[in-house]
Amino acid sequence: MKTFSYKKGIPGFRFSGIAGGLKKNGKKDIGLILADAPCAAAAAFTKNIVKAAPVIIGQKRLKSGMAQAVLVNSGNANACTGAQGIIDCETASAALAQELGIRQGLVVPSSTGVIGVPLPVGKLVAGVPALVKHAASGALSEFSDAIMTTDTFPKIVALQDSIDEHTIKVCGVAKGAGMIMPDMATMLSYIVTNASIERKLLASLVREKVELTFNRISVDGDMSTNDTVLVLASCKSKPLISSAKSASYKTFSNLIYEVMKRLARLIVQDGEGATKLLLINVRNAKTAAQAKQAAMTVANSPLVKTAFFGQDYNWGRIMAALGRSGAQFDMTEVDIFFNGLQSVHNGQGVTKNIGRLKKIMEKNCIEIAMDLKAGTKSCEVTTCDLSYDYVKINADYTT
Amino acid sequence: MKTFSYKKGIPGFRFSGIAGGLKKNGKKDIGLILADAPCAAAAAFTKNIVKAAPVIIGQKRLKSGMAQAVLVNSGNANACTGAQGIIDCETASAALAQELGIRQGLVVPSSTGVIGVPLPVGKLVAGVPALVKHAASGALSEFSDAIMTTDTFPKIVALQDSIDEHTIKVCGVAKGAGMIMPDMATMLSYIVTNASIERKLLASLVREKVELTFNRISVDGDMSTNDTVLVLASCKSKPLISSAKSASYKTFSNLIYEVMKRLARLIVQDGEGATKLLLINVRNAKTAAQAKQAAMTVANSPLVKTAFFGQDYNWGRIMAALGRSGAQFDMTEVDIFFNGLQSVHNGQGVTKNIGRLKKIMEKNCIEIAMDLKAGTKSCEVTTCDLSYDYVKINADYTT
Repeated sequence: MKTFSYKKGIPGFRFSGIAGGLKKNGKKDIGLILADAPCAAAAAFTKNIVKAAPVIIGQKRLKSGMAQAVLVNSGNANACTGAQGIIDCETASAALAQELGIRQGLVVPSSTGVIGVPLPVGKLVAGVPALVKHAASGALSEFSDAIMTTDTFPKIVALQDSIDEHTIKVCGVAKGAGMIMPDMATMLSYIVTNASIERKLLASLVREKVELTFNRISVDGDMSTNDTVLVLASCKSKPLISSAKSASYKTFSNLIYEVMKRLARLIVQDGEGATKLLLINVRNAKTAAQAKQAAMTVANSPLVKTAFFGQDYNWGRIMAALGRSGAQFDMTEVDIFFNGLQSVHNGQGVTKNIGRLKKIMEKNCIEIAMDLKAGTKSCEVTTCDLSYDYVKINADYTT
Repeated sequence: MKTFSYKKGIPGFRFSGIAGGLKKNGKKDIGLILADAPCAAAAAFTKNIVKAAPVIIGQKRLKSGMAQAVLVNSGNANACTGAQGIIDCETASAALAQELGIRQGLVVPSSTGVIGVPLPVGKLVAGVPALVKHAASGALSEFSDAIMTTDTFPKIVALQDSIDEHTIKVCGVAKGAGMIMPDMATMLSYIVTNASIERKLLASLVREKVELTFNRISVDGDMSTNDTVLVLASCKSKPLISSAKSASYKTFSNLIYEVMKRLARLIVQDGEGATKLLLINVRNAKTAAQAKQAAMTVANSPLVKTAFFGQDYNWGRIMAALGRSGAQFDMTEVDIFFNGLQSVHNGQGVTKNIGRLKKIMEKNCIEIAMDLKAGTKSCEVTTCDLSYDYVKINADYTT
């Protein structure tokens, strides 16, 4: 596995991004991913039951396992917009399908931005011709610009590997979990590949790897109405991957996992106001569900997150968060390690390490490993600290 | 029901508070509540499985339903202190029991302060004689001072009512949920009354009313290792309340509920950095559990809390929090009201009210009522906003 320059593109895919007037600051706000032919496609959407119109429509369309184009707008979430929101989303998809001469059902729509404001669908429709005209294989960064809201840097990961002497390329782009400004809370991620894979196998792969990557990050515990992860496989490269037991599947699934994992981590690094990356690692929990629950509770604890922001060496808050997580364990058996150095032994502080542990609190990336000694299940969640800037970013907006 | 001056005391109870040197700033840090004779006693403790030593001991002792004295220290939580923590707690209780000439099992211990540091039990034991000597019926504010950590004001509520021409007095004192400084995250509350009530009935009453009051507040979603609510009934007044169906029980349970509710609200008002009191009211949920889950999810959402701090009229964040709460409802049927004025109708914003709703965002106390139209169950949770000061208070401590 190695990186490659996404600027060279992936055969069979073109990208585009234009300014259509949805963002008030005049920046790019409509993006397009276009495949030469229908692709195998699979997606994971937000589990929030308050879903944006494009999520409702995208879920229906992707039941076919096929897609050829992705139409994304920023500046408006098209969420809580009722029946009109659905109509507006259909209208925009139809305009793109007509311009491309493809079936409307092959267009996957996405939106990100303010909730509860009608989508300015006229601007979207008006932008379609220019969007298609500018589509180019090397224009992924234009697409990336168009989907970004409060992200402070673009998030693109391109990795390749060989299967039977064929080069398999996987390239992903994401916009951040910056839970920001009025409501731009959405995580969007699109991954394209030249690999050939059966549709059902792609669907199960995406489900499995999203759970291990995008579902194991947390900035503030909130979940958007629009979250989407979509994978498009052009199937231009041999061999056809048709069994989860094959060596080719293993290579491909590793590529997908690694691209998703790196994108997920970039999202956390760009979390609102984040100053530190925290790797929350729960080991030896009784069940997998308890491992995840314990890790998520520590990751989302405001007391834990503010302590790390303040570089306050404070393992008691971690113990308290574990204790209220719902995970079952004996508090007199818990061990905790900061970057491998023991902080807690059998539920009590390790006094002799305090000096070195305080030094570790100054690092930009800290792994907190918690051994519950209650079973064999583990879970790692990636999160960030909670800073003044998080509150500032989320409070200072005035409508 | 009416208030009375707690300074006059309640017959049968004395209070005391002294500076024993546990707090570095020299303020009062050891408190005592002392009854003339053994009382009917019932308590609710933290559900956190990481429990402080005094919680473990208190739970055991209160199985008898009897207690005569409460010994509280601030400045040290005696949590995550292992077997020595248990021994230290027993030692302090024994010293008090000996000084008073009562059984050790009648002493309920409590601690609040830093986690994971051995209890300076010598200071506690040394303070016992002075603590007992100064005990007086009018000294509740001394006790209150001794249990406070980062609270910015004392929290005392005294209410009385009549049962069959007997005056029943209920007086409660609490320290706050200020999740503060290193680890002073504890909510402690003690309520004394001259009422006569059977022990089992008192236990079920306390369980029921704690669930409706102290368990329905949230400052930041974190839960302490030391949380305790204790009720002591001296049984000096007639009549004996022995049935949950009696009129006397109803009068008494209303008193207990009201004292608990007022104390709980005072705790939220003194939440770290809080600038607004938020009453989160979920109506017509499918089940009681879903009503509480939905209300708690909205109350603990950092995005919702920062929006209120910033006076940003942003109902989309409330919809998104409801949607991820686990409660079942149809997003196109949700109504939301701010102080009675409709903000959302059938899942969409009510445009004509925006001007007046923005004005409501400037208030110090805002009720957010959410009608899910999915059933008949309701839940109200009291919380506060999330401000710069919350982060400052929780991050700026350096060990």
